[in-house]
Amino acid sequence: MPQISAKGNAMPQSPIRKLVPFAEAAKKRGTTVFHLNIGQPDIKTPQVALDAIKNNDIEVLAYSRSEGSEEYRTKIANYYSKHNVAVKHDDIIVTTGGSEALLFTFGSIMDADDEVIIPEPFYANYNGFSTASGVKVVPVMSSIDNGFALPPIEEFEKLISPKTKAILICNPGNPTGYLYSKEEIKKLAEIVKKHDLFLIADEVYREFAYDGLTHHSVLAEEGLDENAIVIDSVSKRYSMCGARIGCIVSRNKNFMATAMKFAQARLSPPTYAQIASEAALETPDSYFTDVIEEYTERRNTLISELQKIEGVKVATPKGAFYCIAELPVLNADDFAQWLLEKFDLNGETIMVAPAAGFYSTPGVGMNQVRIAYVLEKLSLITAANILKEALVEYKATVEVATL
Amino acid sequence: MPQISAKGNAMPQSPIRKLVPFAEAAKKRGTTVFHLNIGQPDIKTPQVALDAIKNNDIEVLAYSRSEGSEEYRTKIANYYSKHNVAVKHDDIIVTTGGSEALLFTFGSIMDADDEVIIPEPFYANYNGFSTASGVKVVPVMSSIDNGFALPPIEEFEKLISPKTKAILICNPGNPTGYLYSKEEIKKLAEIVKKHDLFLIADEVYREFAYDGLTHHSVLAEEGLDENAIVIDSVSKRYSMCGARIGCIVSRNKNFMATAMKFAQARLSPPTYAQIASEAALETPDSYFTDVIEEYTERRNTLISELQKIEGVKVATPKGAFYCIAELPVLNADDFAQWLLEKFDLNGETIMVAPAAGFYSTPGVGMNQVRIAYVLEKLSLITAANILKEALVEYKATVEVATL
Repeated sequence: MPQISAKGNAMPQSPIRKLVPFAEAAKKRGTTVFHLNIGQPDIKTPQVALDAIKNNDIEVLAYSRSEGSEEYRTKIANYYSKHNVAVKHDDIIVTTGGSEALLFTFGSIMDADDEVIIPEPFYANYNGFSTASGVKVVPVMSSIDNGFALPPIEEFEKLISPKTKAILICNPGNPTGYLYSKEEIKKLAEIVKKHDLFLIADEVYREFAYDGLTHHSVLAEEGLDENAIVIDSVSKRYSMCGARIGCIVSRNKNFMATAMKFAQARLSPPTYAQIASEAALETPDSYFTDVIEEYTERRNTLISELQKIEGVKVATPKGAFYCIAELPVLNADDFAQWLLEKFDLNGETIMVAPAAGFYSTPGVGMNQVRIAYVLEKLSLITAANILKEALVEYKATVEVATL
Repeated sequence: MPQISAKGNAMPQSPIRKLVPFAEAAKKRGTTVFHLNIGQPDIKTPQVALDAIKNNDIEVLAYSRSEGSEEYRTKIANYYSKHNVAVKHDDIIVTTGGSEALLFTFGSIMDADDEVIIPEPFYANYNGFSTASGVKVVPVMSSIDNGFALPPIEEFEKLISPKTKAILICNPGNPTGYLYSKEEIKKLAEIVKKHDLFLIADEVYREFAYDGLTHHSVLAEEGLDENAIVIDSVSKRYSMCGARIGCIVSRNKNFMATAMKFAQARLSPPTYAQIASEAALETPDSYFTDVIEEYTERRNTLISELQKIEGVKVATPKGAFYCIAELPVLNADDFAQWLLEKFDLNGETIMVAPAAGFYSTPGVGMNQVRIAYVLEKLSLITAANILKEALVEYKATVEVATL
């Protein structure tokens, strides 16, 4: 029988996906499941994007340019100029989601066994893209106790080896909700310049900064033209996760020419989704004002409800729409499964994402979960109450039995 | 300055794309360019697919399932049953084009420096996907003199090493137009079973078989459940190249579970395009009857016109919509550029794809070009006449000067 590759065997399973069968079984039993586990917003996609699709007059659904049309990229450059980032259309390659942007980036700058330093916890699929690209994630630990702020720069310095090619940050952070300050970005800029590394910033949650805080792009940092690479996506910005449109942005010409070869090999990003994404750029500012207000309220509600639960520790997120919560359990993986398999409160339960999958250091984050606040306020209150009651029952029955 | 990876440097440029600036310059000069270089059909996308997009009622453009919806995959399985291939929905993973299907497949079955044997000339982007995946293409030469039939199986046998993990065929072939016979598929089946290899068949041109010939899928071959992997795409079938929807089909459970991990890491294929692709399965049979008739006429026209040109050798394609033509020139790359830069016949010229990029053996195919017959008959006649006159002038002026 032909064999699976070592790479294929090493590919991680989605830490969220493995619970799906238990959620489906719960629903079949008639239990309502509140999905705190996924970053799929319930916010409506801007009407201007939906209308563009309904009004398209395509007769032959043809390939687009591998890098996206010049018109769309010019509009994207204009969008960045409003965010204090000066780039031109040829500093941009349109990709099939942020996922592909990251894969092209990894392929362009890293060979087998090269290393990328990432503050952990980090977006779980970074593990998948690294394995697929044959490169190694070197984690630097951030802590819930200071809200997952940038670890001391000396901790990065200690980890840099001749194999290190890049530092990757997610800003604002999934799963932490942390928003890096201008000073933190400057520290990162210095270290990548000093060691000739790339600084890759996944900025797909750029707009989701709360409490009047400002997002600082690595592309707004001076003297970083050769080092800075931004990964972007329309998925969260316009509640268009299903479009699968993102982009790579960099002023490094060599890097862009290399990424372009990866883009050409796969021909083009999806045409319909580009039409919707181009139109989405016309979304009125009021849409974001409303959305940010909504998320701020949801965040406030969720955090205050979580803080009321005995033994739960949570850092207030400054951006994105996730938080990491530390629970008074030994194994959040087991607890998450138990919530779906064994528990309900008046016919309702919750699905959370065990946080261990967001770390690459084995054994870390075992008592943490990621909670996405992509549901409306009342559902979040109900969900927090379910969590509270579930913790009492879980500790009294399951954990007592294992002690 | 941070450095590009060796992989990034090794990524091949598109053999077609590098001529684009010359084509654009020709158009700016007012020259009409007949595009014989790309596989972008001018055939209209089925109305049922276009309508499904215009009539969609999406309000939140959400992620789809990573593997595509069960409903869509069930319909795809039903489509295969009409093509003598019995598969179930869970033998199918929906991908972002055939490109992604091939990348997931390479990642699932090959590690760095593993080898895949491919009859050459082959689809140029196989080189790109191999480089991106860190694996090595081992070519086995097919010849224009027998229409690019399957090379003797002993030639494959000679090339098999412990590093060999798969044989990859494109059937019907891009760029050759060759359609493998049932006997040839059986020979391949035997050798992959004997050596425990995967047999990957890129069958995206399945419907495009002419002269009453039948396409034989590797999935219709008995005893090949663990070895056979089909790469598919809606791009050519429904003239939906811009959809970027394809799939992987295999009955090998281990392989599918592995490919699924790659699919989960990139979240999902594009949602709008899946709606169009699902609807496209309702395309009436008459659409294909008309399309095949049209392509048959175009092929007949092109081949008979090419055969009239002195010094041109061409094999009659049995499928797909390409042919490889051998030209009486020393360097088809140079000739193709000259056609765009220096030549016109009454204000018209042609763009062809130099065939060297479809070979991985250096120096082979230097006097060949790939011609796609995706234009209407009259344009093909005009284009062939331009080629004839251009060859006379090129040989009299350019090649004479270099001798």
